Amino acid sequence: MNGEDAFLTALRRGLGPAASGEGVELGIGDDAAVLRLPPGERLVATVDMVVEGQHFLRQGPVAADPGDIGWRALVVNLSDLAAMGARPLWALSSVGVPAGFSPTELEAVYAGLAEAAKRFGIAVVGGNLAVVAERLVVDVTALGGVKRWVPRSGGRPGDRICVTGRLGAAAAGLALSRLGSEAQRRLPEADVALLLSACRRPQPRLREGRALAALAPYGVRAMCDVSDGLTCDLGHLCGPRMGAVLWRSALPVPRAVEDAARRAGVEVLEWVLGGGEDYELLCLVAPEAVDAARDAVAMTGDTPLAVIGECVASPGLRLATDEGQEGQPLPASGWDPFGR
Amino acid sequence: MNGEDAFLTALRRGLGPAASGEGVELGIGDDAAVLRLPPGERLVATVDMVVEGQHFLRQGPVAADPGDIGWRALVVNLSDLAAMGARPLWALSSVGVPAGFSPTELEAVYAGLAEAAKRFGIAVVGGNLAVVAERLVVDVTALGGVKRWVPRSGGRPGDRICVTGRLGAAAAGLALSRLGSEAQRRLPEADVALLLSACRRPQPRLREGRALAALAPYGVRAMCDVSDGLTCDLGHLCGPRMGAVLWRSALPVPRAVEDAARRAGVEVLEWVLGGGEDYELLCLVAPEAVDAARDAVAMTGDTPLAVIGECVASPGLRLATDEGQEGQPLPASGWDPFGR
Repeated sequence: MNGEDAFLTALRRGLGPAASGEGVELGIGDDAAVLRLPPGERLVATVDMVVEGQHFLRQGPVAADPGDIGWRALVVNLSDLAAMGARPLWALSSVGVPAGFSPTELEAVYAGLAEAAKRFGIAVVGGNLAVVAERLVVDVTALGGVKRWVPRSGGRPGDRICVTGRLGAAAAGLALSRLGSEAQRRLPEADVALLLSACRRPQPRLREGRALAALAPYGVRAMCDVSDGLTCDLGHLCGPRMGAVLWRSALPVPRAVEDAARRAGVEVLEWVLGGGEDYELLCLVAPEAVDAARDAVAMTGDTPLAVIGECVASPGLRLATDEGQEGQPLPASGWDPFGR
Repeated sequence: MNGEDAFLTALRRGLGPAASGEGVELGIGDDAAVLRLPPGERLVATVDMVVEGQHFLRQGPVAADPGDIGWRALVVNLSDLAAMGARPLWALSSVGVPAGFSPTELEAVYAGLAEAAKRFGIAVVGGNLAVVAERLVVDVTALGGVKRWVPRSGGRPGDRICVTGRLGAAAAGLALSRLGSEAQRRLPEADVALLLSACRRPQPRLREGRALAALAPYGVRAMCDVSDGLTCDLGHLCGPRMGAVLWRSALPVPRAVEDAARRAGVEVLEWVLGGGEDYELLCLVAPEAVDAARDAVAMTGDTPLAVIGECVASPGLRLATDEGQEGQPLPASGWDPFGR
């Protein structure tokens, strides 16, 4: 057995049953996969690459577990499918393995990816291995099906800004990892577990996305996921010609995040507005459709939909304490892989 | 304009009109693309990553031009679609840029990718940028549509082994690049142009693949592309339970390749059997369907289909001088990114 075979075996073992699924006529092992898209659905496609050193580390206090790396590589893509209101169907992944990486480590990365695939109902139908000597690189393409979808553009002044779930937990979790176990012991165990898991095993809001997209004809006008940070992603939805006012009191910040920020000596808004990687859904909803949107999301599980602000005609983002106030300008900062 | 914006602008400028095409309802710029698969077609999906240092170099005598890198990254995937008999529709690409890479260089990579996209009728609907400090990494997922497809497995003893086009030209071109312009001047100009272009701008056999797949019900039983090398790829088609005899006299080796091998002091079979990256189509065809397959391929253009051997019941590959002879065993060597 030569080197490549050992890695291909690791890939197959890591993936396990995640290599088959709905509509897969031909999966991994041929020149390409052959797939059956449900009739009447559009295909939704997205790609995202995670790179050691930029999106995760493999050494030091915040080293990611190989399984978490695989999980994240798939989930960041599932979150993009969620933001279109799509149902996940299939994924393809390329892995660039660093020098000295063992088949066992590769198997663990694929096992994490397969765990997310099983959890969220997607089959992995293509895999490719290469050598990137210095870093682990995982690139995933996710494919889904959709009947009704919501674009990023489409919002209008007066629309309410809504967000699923909670904000700041992933950034808080990352900060907690950095602080180490000593600092973690000073916080309630449940808080630590919540924040670390938000950072290590993000959850895509797939059911919530589909529920919101079903309301596209009734006033859910624009949607994206919160990957780069609230301010940055809201800037994408507003575009250059519209602005928004966020209401501080309405932002869904868990108490655990507030506590961790105090403990870490960080202004909590840094995490909430700029932290990113929350993988919540952010949408712009006509005022008369807000109740329907909230009910639709509530019916999918226990993730709430919060109304956190309003779109306005003048460009730029502002932060107010409460609804009805003018607020202060916010810098349109966000995550910039090249600028940092 | 921050760093990422400059790169995103380069991506958009490089892609140009290749960012739109058939069935694209929503392209680059949203969380995901929304695509319309032609009714009645299966979706075909494949992914391939090309990495500096493993698949191409950016420095030294065989340094690849950025446009050639982009071209190759797409074409290796189009060749996989060709091997399924699929029609190319859409591609998504992730680029990991090395430290010091300029937006202009990125634009050139994307322009090469866009040139191939335009030439072969595929729209680029997703793009993603990351930093891989030490090397340029380009990962492409290609999506196509197919009604009738040919798997890798499906061949039987007695099937004829057929290959489109010519073999060994890409390996000869790479060797010529290594030898430098001095050595190239000693060969006919047309030969040098042919070999270098086979190496730098490989052509996927898309029309030929569709013509062959249309004959799937009539005896075109197995197909793959010649990417790893004839011996290795034929091994994939034969699987562990079948063998094959190749006929030396029937192998489609251009005179330019024979001449270059003599000049380089290389046994030409090394390039023909093990060189790889020819991106021809290799298929196993029932004897009674060979004429139909040859005619079908001939009708798509001027690429011939050569009958180069026969499948046999006993495992292992053999090389004979001519049809009817038993031949000598061939090692099942091929391209191994980890073993070299």
